[in-house]
Amino acid sequence: MLRTNTCGELTIKDKNNKVTLCGWVQRSRDLGGMTFIDLRDRYGITQLVFNMDTNSALCEEARKLGREFVISVIGTVAERSNKNLKIPTGEIEIIADSFEILNESKLPPFTIEDDTDGGEEQRMKYRYLDLRRNVNKNNLELRHKMASATREYLNSVNFIEIETPFLIKSTPEGARDYVVPSRINPGEFYALPQSPQTFKQLLMVAGYDRYYQIVRCFRDEDLRADRQPEFTQIDCEMSFATQEGVLETFEGLVKHLFKKIKKIDIEKIPRMSYHDAMKYYGTDKPDIRFEMKFVELNDVTRGKGFKVFDEAAFVVGICAEGCGEYTRKQLDELTDFVRKPQIGASGLVYVKIGKDGSYKSSVDKFFAQEDLKKIAAKFNAKENDLILILAGQKDKTRKCLGELRLEMADRKGLKDNKKYCPLWVLDFPLFEWHEEMNRYYAKHHPFTSPKPEDISLLDHNPIVVKANAYDLVINGVEIGGGSIRIHNKQLQNKMFKVLGFTEKEAQEQFGFLMNAFEYGAPPHGGIAFGFDRWCALFGEGTSIRDYIAFPKNNAGRDVMIDSPSQISEEQLKELNLKIDLKK
Amino acid sequence: MLRTNTCGELTIKDKNNKVTLCGWVQRSRDLGGMTFIDLRDRYGITQLVFNMDTNSALCEEARKLGREFVISVIGTVAERSNKNLKIPTGEIEIIADSFEILNESKLPPFTIEDDTDGGEEQRMKYRYLDLRRNVNKNNLELRHKMASATREYLNSVNFIEIETPFLIKSTPEGARDYVVPSRINPGEFYALPQSPQTFKQLLMVAGYDRYYQIVRCFRDEDLRADRQPEFTQIDCEMSFATQEGVLETFEGLVKHLFKKIKKIDIEKIPRMSYHDAMKYYGTDKPDIRFEMKFVELNDVTRGKGFKVFDEAAFVVGICAEGCGEYTRKQLDELTDFVRKPQIGASGLVYVKIGKDGSYKSSVDKFFAQEDLKKIAAKFNAKENDLILILAGQKDKTRKCLGELRLEMADRKGLKDNKKYCPLWVLDFPLFEWHEEMNRYYAKHHPFTSPKPEDISLLDHNPIVVKANAYDLVINGVEIGGGSIRIHNKQLQNKMFKVLGFTEKEAQEQFGFLMNAFEYGAPPHGGIAFGFDRWCALFGEGTSIRDYIAFPKNNAGRDVMIDSPSQISEEQLKELNLKIDLKK
Repeated sequence: MLRTNTCGELTIKDKNNKVTLCGWVQRSRDLGGMTFIDLRDRYGITQLVFNMDTNSALCEEARKLGREFVISVIGTVAERSNKNLKIPTGEIEIIADSFEILNESKLPPFTIEDDTDGGEEQRMKYRYLDLRRNVNKNNLELRHKMASATREYLNSVNFIEIETPFLIKSTPEGARDYVVPSRINPGEFYALPQSPQTFKQLLMVAGYDRYYQIVRCFRDEDLRADRQPEFTQIDCEMSFATQEGVLETFEGLVKHLFKKIKKIDIEKIPRMSYHDAMKYYGTDKPDIRFEMKFVELNDVTRGKGFKVFDEAAFVVGICAEGCGEYTRKQLDELTDFVRKPQIGASGLVYVKIGKDGSYKSSVDKFFAQEDLKKIAAKFNAKENDLILILAGQKDKTRKCLGELRLEMADRKGLKDNKKYCPLWVLDFPLFEWHEEMNRYYAKHHPFTSPKPEDISLLDHNPIVVKANAYDLVINGVEIGGGSIRIHNKQLQNKMFKVLGFTEKEAQEQFGFLMNAFEYGAPPHGGIAFGFDRWCALFGEGTSIRDYIAFPKNNAGRDVMIDSPSQISEEQLKELNLKIDLKK
Repeated sequence: MLRTNTCGELTIKDKNNKVTLCGWVQRSRDLGGMTFIDLRDRYGITQLVFNMDTNSALCEEARKLGREFVISVIGTVAERSNKNLKIPTGEIEIIADSFEILNESKLPPFTIEDDTDGGEEQRMKYRYLDLRRNVNKNNLELRHKMASATREYLNSVNFIEIETPFLIKSTPEGARDYVVPSRINPGEFYALPQSPQTFKQLLMVAGYDRYYQIVRCFRDEDLRADRQPEFTQIDCEMSFATQEGVLETFEGLVKHLFKKIKKIDIEKIPRMSYHDAMKYYGTDKPDIRFEMKFVELNDVTRGKGFKVFDEAAFVVGICAEGCGEYTRKQLDELTDFVRKPQIGASGLVYVKIGKDGSYKSSVDKFFAQEDLKKIAAKFNAKENDLILILAGQKDKTRKCLGELRLEMADRKGLKDNKKYCPLWVLDFPLFEWHEEMNRYYAKHHPFTSPKPEDISLLDHNPIVVKANAYDLVINGVEIGGGSIRIHNKQLQNKMFKVLGFTEKEAQEQFGFLMNAFEYGAPPHGGIAFGFDRWCALFGEGTSIRDYIAFPKNNAGRDVMIDSPSQISEEQLKELNLKIDLKK
């Protein structure tokens, strides 16, 4: 090795030892007759000292070292007079005897510090420099620890990691596939997996009982902020388990990761039905770090002559505690917020409760104090509270109010990064209706099992059928989702029929799975966790991109390696392809 | 859960316990008034008993269960009268109270036994049934354990697992890339990685110091037996290490895996130069479980009037101990062997040493007993040994004799599956000359560092330049290979120049890496191991396919899911592609 020690390990115990360190010049300070250099490697920072009095030639050389130069230095560990107790190596320094420049560095395009002056694009282009920053290093180390802890737990409860193929088959259900042309099979394509779903089910048919994999998945979606074309899943499946068994098993994983990574003891994870999540939070991923539950108000708002309420199918509100003194300006901001196109409400009604117990509302004209009191009573609202009410079509209004609830939580500082409230959301509907396509879609995926008691409804009223499906939500973020699967060919066939597949299409695309179901498929179910998101959540970060070593930008580009890029005519010819650009 | 226990855990200690088991009907035997069923799951087999006397209705039902039916059964653990001490559950059986059929099974197309009657193609089509066989289950469990043990070791010595991207950039150097059309960037393509080589080097530039990843890689090669289009690598890289440091670190991994998985203590791994490997074994991956080293014979075969030897640039032989009584027929077989087109020798000369010390040779006409004695002396050959000699162009003759040496080892039973002889092969040449392309190719890859003392030869005599490159060979199988990398832009540029890149091409394809080298790239090196092969080696198997859950066949097809396949016109249109099949 080129070094005897790393820059993170020497302490006062090593005093007087002769050592060789390697690393990067983080910063350099000339103080009169001395030059101090902070030498950095992955493990920490160690101070080097060069003395003009005792070795002026060496000190002169050291003064020429630029930022990010890579050097190896030989020296003796000495006790510092001016100790820095904030870092493990802060009690010592290295009195340098000699050093060697292992590589020079041009001046980096941005500073390699926690607070860098580099913009997003610069940092992505020079990602290898961005990754030198402590924040990013900590993120990738966190990710490594989380993967290790995940494997540790799953191995301990008999799960076996099995690698499934990446070159699979394109199926039109779900998101868009990335495809890979096959040179050896002209005109044919592989697809990259959106998830190993069918393979993990086949592993259950094969008797593997408990499978997992930390695995890359691919979706060719129109990119949005915080969507990556490739992402990582903790993918799991188990046999002979009820929904309860699956939830218990993976509650174990959740607790293990919280304990191991965050040093937090998680109590029994609460559960909420999809129905209640929508009713009380307007979303299937409620952030339950705070209350502000929805209260439905049709019965107390009806017939007062306020047309908006009278004509609305649905009137619903939240109560923001302690916001009764919101100003006109603040209330206007909230109205603007709900009217933003991505929220889409047409207006907002408020009821303020004064410190004197009086009510003030934007609909004073229609609602007497007595009427407002009735509304307030529905929320158990107190003095100095603020009630915010939306009206309209039910699903849409719930969605808008859900967003407003999160906005109010932001304003009230209720989203505590250090507080974690995991939640199981259960009893999802099996289908949702897709207006444009004029057909049912699988809410989860086509392999999810209906609740046994609802199977008879599949033929005539599929929209009310509930699924044995569940999501893990932490702080309003969907961290995982899964279901008990269908393991019976007839039921799977019926499912495809409801989804509008012809028998031929179903056979062509999923024949291998349905055939497998005829050879003793066990009852099974599973779950998949979004690993990038979970890392971001535990890292208290805002973007999954900060937890991926080499992410792509919003146009799906890797700006560092400049990919995707054109390929040669020869490659295209070998693949039997022609590019056919739209004009 | 649907069960209280697995089929692999109940023993005499559980006697009289009421249990519920789930599993597959492995086999069923009716013996007079009793029916015995072997119930199988991932963990083992437990015997179920149904008694016609005590519960005739249940027993009748049990007799209807077919092979591979999935059932759950409730019963009581009882001591067996007829114990089977070969399996952990062999002392007990379950007296069944009731059972439920969880899923029926059609009769499988082949028997689910270690010795199956299913042919390769059937088994691949029904891979989910093939995987139920113990042999395959053991292989996948071995693979899981090897991955776990690998992570355990590498984590313990401060390596961090970092995921690198799968959607990267196509580069023409090396094997053919699989490419992925980008919908969002029309006319452009990603490529799937042949290895994370450049990314791991960038991680070193980024200061991550010790990186690893167990990662899928892709090569669009013309498939041969035991080549898969996707395969798994243990990919590693470290900074501030000399070649010696890298070898020591990964010798630790090799020892750890041998100890943990095979319970074998590996001594210090011997080392051999590429030069010696070629000279004494005719291959860069010598199987050193046995000797039979090459002996060069030009000096003792010259000038005896035998034209083949006299005209040959190179005469070389091996000595097969104890084969002096080989018959005419056996010797003819060996001649046929070396003449096979894939070996390509034109003939074989033998010298047999009789039990009486006399010599018999196919070139008796030219070589007197005294001459043959001189040849035999070169090998220290004894009575009853057989010397086999090839002649011709040096490299080709060595290759042929290398094959013959392995053939003789097979015949003599020297390839002991239970014996493991790892070997480091060192000091590879940096380049090889490619006749067809009329240019140099990188023997390892273009990022491999020349030995410092050879750098001056790069300009005028590249073919003699040696590389800081090394392979790990076990029992004649190349399990891993790596090198100390170039970390200097000028040297990397020169390397590309020798390889025939224009400056523009080098910049377009690897500009990001060479730019990175300008910002303080540390000295670094690494290694990658072929994980599938290592699993096959430890599993004492012959094909890597048996160690991959869902492998592809020799035409790159997954016959189970029928992939690759055609995609829709709509998909092609979205990707701006047209298929252009050659007529």
